[in-house]
Amino acid sequence: MALLVVGSVAFDSIETPHGTVDEALGGSATFFSYAASFFTSPRLVGVVGEDFPDDHRRLLEDRGVDTRGLVTESGQTFRWKGRYHRDMNNRDTLEVHLNVFGTFDPVLPGEYRDSTHVFLANSSPVVQARVLDQVGRPDLVLADTMDLWIKTQRDALLALLPRLDGLLLNDSEALLLTGETNLVRAGHAVRKMGPRFVILKKGEHGAMLFSEEGVFVVPAFPTTEVIDPTGAGDSFAGGIMGYLHANRQHQQPGHLRRAMAYGTVVASLTVEGFGLDRLLQTDRAEIDDRLETYRSMLAF
Amino acid sequence: MALLVVGSVAFDSIETPHGTVDEALGGSATFFSYAASFFTSPRLVGVVGEDFPDDHRRLLEDRGVDTRGLVTESGQTFRWKGRYHRDMNNRDTLEVHLNVFGTFDPVLPGEYRDSTHVFLANSSPVVQARVLDQVGRPDLVLADTMDLWIKTQRDALLALLPRLDGLLLNDSEALLLTGETNLVRAGHAVRKMGPRFVILKKGEHGAMLFSEEGVFVVPAFPTTEVIDPTGAGDSFAGGIMGYLHANRQHQQPGHLRRAMAYGTVVASLTVEGFGLDRLLQTDRAEIDDRLETYRSMLAF
Repeated sequence: MALLVVGSVAFDSIETPHGTVDEALGGSATFFSYAASFFTSPRLVGVVGEDFPDDHRRLLEDRGVDTRGLVTESGQTFRWKGRYHRDMNNRDTLEVHLNVFGTFDPVLPGEYRDSTHVFLANSSPVVQARVLDQVGRPDLVLADTMDLWIKTQRDALLALLPRLDGLLLNDSEALLLTGETNLVRAGHAVRKMGPRFVILKKGEHGAMLFSEEGVFVVPAFPTTEVIDPTGAGDSFAGGIMGYLHANRQHQQPGHLRRAMAYGTVVASLTVEGFGLDRLLQTDRAEIDDRLETYRSMLAF
Repeated sequence: MALLVVGSVAFDSIETPHGTVDEALGGSATFFSYAASFFTSPRLVGVVGEDFPDDHRRLLEDRGVDTRGLVTESGQTFRWKGRYHRDMNNRDTLEVHLNVFGTFDPVLPGEYRDSTHVFLANSSPVVQARVLDQVGRPDLVLADTMDLWIKTQRDALLALLPRLDGLLLNDSEALLLTGETNLVRAGHAVRKMGPRFVILKKGEHGAMLFSEEGVFVVPAFPTTEVIDPTGAGDSFAGGIMGYLHANRQHQQPGHLRRAMAYGTVVASLTVEGFGLDRLLQTDRAEIDDRLETYRSMLAF
């Protein structure tokens, strides 16, 4: 009856105007599960190579992440290298070595099939659909996607959308998917393609939620310390899904909105350090404190 | 004891992906005073040429705008021509004819000198300071500025800042003025230059307020109908100052925040039509309705 994430585990080498880091623990499933761990104990499905240190696995397990689904295959772990521009809103990918992730065909451990909440981190919609086939009767499925799949696997993506509760995508991807030029129209148009709700990510400008409750606008938490934006989107999703899973018995109007507020706060912590650094130093009390600060920043 | 605006009155010719308009009534003082007129009866100081139709003056007067300060000089009215890009976030200025506005040295009518609330619309900080010299003891002075003055009249701008209560500027201008790369740091840094509060405009992404009450984040109202962004910033300011002036006897914590929420709503109406078109069709009841919708979009 748990929260499941299927995604990447990687080594990230990152340059930002604030410094560099080499082969830091990263990947969508890492950021998601670590963020979600402040709310619940997520299950992780992913793949690493033989070079993946036990310390990293223990880091996740110590946060209550169930790593039985994190398989080791012969070869090297996924590596990504990128450089952020001065304004931190744009980045160049310098190197990508998919390694064992390139041929990963996720197989859920049998004991994961009763997962009630599922996050399909960014990957091919074909793979995302195959994961979904393996889950019994999930209560809530959220998927991430990217421009590559919209361009190259549009039909598979369109077939997946009605199977989702929610789709997470960024602003330019929503425009690309729908052909709209206005974000609000695009959000509504994506909903018509199948998902019950749509979350549009706008990076430092926050996010928007489109659901049966209407449109909800979520500015980013205005942090002064943007050190490394890597993982912000996945920890945003982790905060959202972690909150939704932990509070699944107490659903009421505004449930998704509160989840997005938590996701926003967790993402704002993520960007205040390289990789997982800042999340390693936070706890639920700080997250709750920042949530109240955030609430007061929006009140009028 | 009124609200005063000193700024431009112009004919705008605009191309957007939604159509074109020729020589529509525009200018900073026009948008500001029309927006403020939903809250109070503002005084306008500006200049037009002999080609300015009486109809335009009556349009403002019918909204309660005091146009005794709108002088007519021999020559032509200020004309601006611009074209918005497909995404509406960028525009090219195609033509600027300052005409009578180019040599305008604002002289306040004697009866305007007791104005309690003053908006110095975008113009040279030297001219803005000369206007301020003519006002007795204003309670609240807000000024707009732009990159041109930051680059070419930096010293005059720095001398003006401590005389202001608030400075309004857009995100890139704040970075330019302070040398910061992070908007939140930039907002705090501008405050240290003198103004009691700073409002950073981020266009379709809303605005941020920096004041003694902390940081307040203000997303834009998510309208699906962005027809013409011209005048959004000045009607945002008009909503803010109109509200502040109308409620000057009832100040309490959050006063500025509520003013910015009203400014946001009025600006969202402005962009839904060319020039003043949409504002001409609205009223205080619709503004108040949209404010409540906006409030619910932010609540969690």
